[in-house]
Amino acid sequence: MFENKNQSKTDLSSLGEFALIDHLTSTFSLKNKSSLLGIGDDAAVLDYSNQQTLVSTDLLIEGIHFDLSYMPLKHLGYKAIIVNLSDLYAMNGTPSQVTVSLAASNRFSLEALEELYAGIALACKNYNVDLIGGDTSSSTSGLMLSITVLGTSDKEHIVKRSGAKENDLLVVSGDLGAAYTGLQILEREKAVFLVNPNSQPDLTPYSYSIERQLKPEARKDIIELLKELKVVPTSMIDISDGLSSEIFHLAKASEVGFHIFENKLPMDPEVNLICEEFKINSTTAVLNGGEDYELLFTIAQKDFDKIKNHPLLTVIGHVVEKNAGCQLITGLGQQIEMRAQGWNSFKNNEG
Amino acid sequence: MFENKNQSKTDLSSLGEFALIDHLTSTFSLKNKSSLLGIGDDAAVLDYSNQQTLVSTDLLIEGIHFDLSYMPLKHLGYKAIIVNLSDLYAMNGTPSQVTVSLAASNRFSLEALEELYAGIALACKNYNVDLIGGDTSSSTSGLMLSITVLGTSDKEHIVKRSGAKENDLLVVSGDLGAAYTGLQILEREKAVFLVNPNSQPDLTPYSYSIERQLKPEARKDIIELLKELKVVPTSMIDISDGLSSEIFHLAKASEVGFHIFENKLPMDPEVNLICEEFKINSTTAVLNGGEDYELLFTIAQKDFDKIKNHPLLTVIGHVVEKNAGCQLITGLGQQIEMRAQGWNSFKNNEG
Repeated sequence: MFENKNQSKTDLSSLGEFALIDHLTSTFSLKNKSSLLGIGDDAAVLDYSNQQTLVSTDLLIEGIHFDLSYMPLKHLGYKAIIVNLSDLYAMNGTPSQVTVSLAASNRFSLEALEELYAGIALACKNYNVDLIGGDTSSSTSGLMLSITVLGTSDKEHIVKRSGAKENDLLVVSGDLGAAYTGLQILEREKAVFLVNPNSQPDLTPYSYSIERQLKPEARKDIIELLKELKVVPTSMIDISDGLSSEIFHLAKASEVGFHIFENKLPMDPEVNLICEEFKINSTTAVLNGGEDYELLFTIAQKDFDKIKNHPLLTVIGHVVEKNAGCQLITGLGQQIEMRAQGWNSFKNNEG
Repeated sequence: MFENKNQSKTDLSSLGEFALIDHLTSTFSLKNKSSLLGIGDDAAVLDYSNQQTLVSTDLLIEGIHFDLSYMPLKHLGYKAIIVNLSDLYAMNGTPSQVTVSLAASNRFSLEALEELYAGIALACKNYNVDLIGGDTSSSTSGLMLSITVLGTSDKEHIVKRSGAKENDLLVVSGDLGAAYTGLQILEREKAVFLVNPNSQPDLTPYSYSIERQLKPEARKDIIELLKELKVVPTSMIDISDGLSSEIFHLAKASEVGFHIFENKLPMDPEVNLICEEFKINSTTAVLNGGEDYELLFTIAQKDFDKIKNHPLLTVIGHVVEKNAGCQLITGLGQQIEMRAQGWNSFKNNEG
């Protein structure tokens, strides 16, 4: 992961800007019926028939959102698509197209960008999404990706952040905190590598966490499961910045409060072990860690029977009235007022 | 233009990322019927009924695409929207929504970004477009904007680059070269300012060119005019990289060649004067200058009567067969093979 590979390198300036786009996207083809015209004109043309259109966009910037010393470029390409798809699933929608814009400094070779696009292509294939446009530019420093995802939903199935009602149940998919503990491991190994480039760490005990950090998946399966179970959440969001931050978003948009039960928070055992190793409180890792890309949603009480005991879904709390605020109920029954401590790129980066 | 204003400055890190988005977009409201849900959820929701969707995206990067020493931030915001809208008009479409993603280093204050968004807001207002989403991040160097524009067209009115047929006429709107001569003036005045910050240049003789560079408009009016004249172009593109580069795009997509007549190229007299001053060949400025955001399109011969003598439209050549290539016919009747010399950010920036 940390080795310098001796690869052939083609300078980006040897290609024109248009030749670069053509080269990087030549293996992409349009698969979705709604993709009428892709890359190569002034705009892409889509036909969504009578469905409503969903649009979301995300920036990923080197040194802020990712560190290429432990993030392979193929993984970065994959993850960049995933984090955008996750936003559309969080609306209970189906993503169908992406645009990818890229700025790269002359530190990056054509082969490096091919790796990046191989990851983008894999994510597009796995999630049945078409690459339909984008822009490329040189940059004065580092790598920057700007991705926009488009998709659809039937009008009656769109789930916003604003629909949570008092007494609804708060449900989360999968487990939380592992993307954060994975990051801790990678940061530690980077520091070790800088001191001793010949060290060969055994990362096997941390493989789940590292995979959650480097190659997250978007919960397409959960959206399909909810459809199968005939559950339409009353509100929904994906967990990108950390559970507590997302709970506050739902609370604000829906004008409600939440009670969250600490001992219900789903965690992989590996997260507990790494938290012990790093002397981090595991609840803190779950609440503030972020990047798990799980779905957080509320459902009406009447739907509880449809989801109970499902291994991928955990009820972690319920909706209370707005003035009660967002409270964490600890294992000992203490009530602690939660604070939004999601990630803030402007505060976390003083560069 | 080059003075340092003594303004109040609020550090971006004093706001959170969400507070920053909320603050910058608080004065934007949704105006279009198709904009159902804007900023504030995981995705925006749009309803285009039965129309086809058009999507285009552009990156603007400080030090590559703009220079803040002579580009006021409000103008930059305005221009960033315009260059994207221009792409949708070039499809004969109607833009209706934009997303704006922004990365800014801590060199930028909140007040600076407010200026930028004032320009974005003005462009949205003038062109009846809604801001529906985006992302903000800190950056390790400078300012970066990534804009995606969405809009619609009736299926039968969409004009691609690929429809030009032999004997079609090549038409351009407005005049060409002034954005380029404006840039030459601004670059010169920047150099003068760096030597003598107290110099007060008289820029009045260059006002048209400077405005074309700093505050371009997108040719919404031409799209409306063509509709009024009942002309559907056979192919179309907007002139962002320079006339010759765009002609080659049409030629490639349509598999045709072009004859262009040098003495038909529309130029403002100011362009000629500045070219003389700078000892630049004015035809070169027109062919390779770029950033005019005029529309370049082909029409069938039968439509000539509908557009002839219109002050905003000039026939500059016609379509020939592919093997004839793209030829410039000079005032003296010489035939010169054209070369695409559009702007290439990877070559033009060695930083």
